[in-house]
Amino acid sequence: MKVVGGLVDRMGNILARSVTQAHAEEQPSVVIDAIVETYESLLAESEINKSNLVGLGLGFPGNTNGPAGIVLESSNLPDWNNYPLRDLLSERISLPVALDNDANICAVGEYRFGAGQGVEHMCYVTFSTGYGIGIIINGQIYTGQIGTAGELGHVVIDIDGPLCTCGKRGCIMAYASGIGISRMAYERLDEAGADHLRQLVAKRQQDEAEKRIPAEWVVESAQQGDLVAQEILQTAGYYGGVGLSMIVQVLNPELIVVGGGLVKAGEWLLEPMMAALYEHTQVESRDFIQVKYWVLGDDLGVLGAAAQVFEAFEK
Amino acid sequence: MKVVGGLVDRMGNILARSVTQAHAEEQPSVVIDAIVETYESLLAESEINKSNLVGLGLGFPGNTNGPAGIVLESSNLPDWNNYPLRDLLSERISLPVALDNDANICAVGEYRFGAGQGVEHMCYVTFSTGYGIGIIINGQIYTGQIGTAGELGHVVIDIDGPLCTCGKRGCIMAYASGIGISRMAYERLDEAGADHLRQLVAKRQQDEAEKRIPAEWVVESAQQGDLVAQEILQTAGYYGGVGLSMIVQVLNPELIVVGGGLVKAGEWLLEPMMAALYEHTQVESRDFIQVKYWVLGDDLGVLGAAAQVFEAFEK
Repeated sequence: MKVVGGLVDRMGNILARSVTQAHAEEQPSVVIDAIVETYESLLAESEINKSNLVGLGLGFPGNTNGPAGIVLESSNLPDWNNYPLRDLLSERISLPVALDNDANICAVGEYRFGAGQGVEHMCYVTFSTGYGIGIIINGQIYTGQIGTAGELGHVVIDIDGPLCTCGKRGCIMAYASGIGISRMAYERLDEAGADHLRQLVAKRQQDEAEKRIPAEWVVESAQQGDLVAQEILQTAGYYGGVGLSMIVQVLNPELIVVGGGLVKAGEWLLEPMMAALYEHTQVESRDFIQVKYWVLGDDLGVLGAAAQVFEAFEK
Repeated sequence: MKVVGGLVDRMGNILARSVTQAHAEEQPSVVIDAIVETYESLLAESEINKSNLVGLGLGFPGNTNGPAGIVLESSNLPDWNNYPLRDLLSERISLPVALDNDANICAVGEYRFGAGQGVEHMCYVTFSTGYGIGIIINGQIYTGQIGTAGELGHVVIDIDGPLCTCGKRGCIMAYASGIGISRMAYERLDEAGADHLRQLVAKRQQDEAEKRIPAEWVVESAQQGDLVAQEILQTAGYYGGVGLSMIVQVLNPELIVVGGGLVKAGEWLLEPMMAALYEHTQVESRDFIQVKYWVLGDDLGVLGAAAQVFEAFEK
């Protein structure tokens, strides 16, 4: 786990940046130390007086109960189960802390500083290693009863489909994610038409026993003309678009903002995504939905965490 | 179309009832006449002074934009497209009118007078001729940008599945609804194990050209031991439960209230529904979700419309 931090003003300008390595697999206290270290180096670097800070925002890669400030679980590491990260961190640095999961933080970031400015109801879709959404309703983040709203990636779309990381079968995320792309690449590597991908894997895969094929290699191969890689991206995009259609059917927002690393995969993925959205959405609703791509890009994590602080502590 | 009306007090007591026949297929003005007739007969019967009325609530069987008071469309009848029913009716009777679709009205009814009292976030699932949900967030009905939130019945669950009434394929409603049950019954009528259902159809189907097999006949046959009818109800219930799992994954409400005529189909349908909810919901969320059946039953339409009036005009 990497702790990426930034000092952000009310207009969304990043005034300072800092990155610290931490090993979340070991102990939550190590991660807290890394966050504190990031925070202190930002404060020192910027020479800003602590009394000018509104708070510290934290986007956590795992299930969280944002309103309660609790990490529910992270990648099945038992140390993180029901961990009161917000309050422990807040005590350490004597500042208010706002905590939520990645997708919710990103939703708030695009809503306040990015593509979602001025709308009432929107969803932010994380289309990267995983697939999930953050929901803004009436201008506020909606997280549900225990904070797990927006887990669209683990909605089943193919009852007899492939096994997902969550233990269920045929989830959207089993196709529409970096994880899904890696799985499909591994399964289809021996097919005719996968020449470029096979060459790339043979050249780069250090440890053959690992057998993981990063989604980036599939994107690269698709751009080089590899037919199987192109089909894999089309499948991922198509199922991602089925997810978008579910958002429109169930939540009828004004706007969907699609972000995450896979947006960079370009038209191989995004065209089938939009086609699936159109195909699977009722005619009454589909003419009204706007789809935009993120505008904050790689800064969205930092800006979203800051946006969450301003939303939480300045209203 | 039948106009069912009631006079309801703030505690949810139905003080008077009235039913008027109208033919929605003809003209919206005929339906308005029937609503006015229902309203006037209730007023006359109850001898209540009009000045004591808060308003008239209306649950409409079609797509509506509740906050705008508009019928978007109803069963593809062009006369209803973008019809400003609320304001036209309000002018006729000189009373505030609250309008929304069936599922939303029912959600508000169970929230105010029934199984949902005291919760913050809940969904009401209509499991009857169709399948759809009404969403309560922070104690208020949520209808989205143009009023079409909650169209869960037309979320695709089987991309190559059977044709749905909406023109798309493999929607939840193509299985989990009276319409879906009728379709499956028609397709499986010649199978071994469908003896009772076949006999019932032969005895009751007046016009063989119509070929519609009501869901009630399937329920009756299942209860008489017909194996195919039992399997059909199990399939409908299972897909209905997949829909419930989507609700939990996306909205993480405290409570789901399941209502509608198919609840009366009993365990053949409801056990597979609960099994599918359990199977397709992530472990983090499923232990926290409560599922209840409606408590207002056949009165829910009238009580929901009344609840909508109190929610809209007394806050």
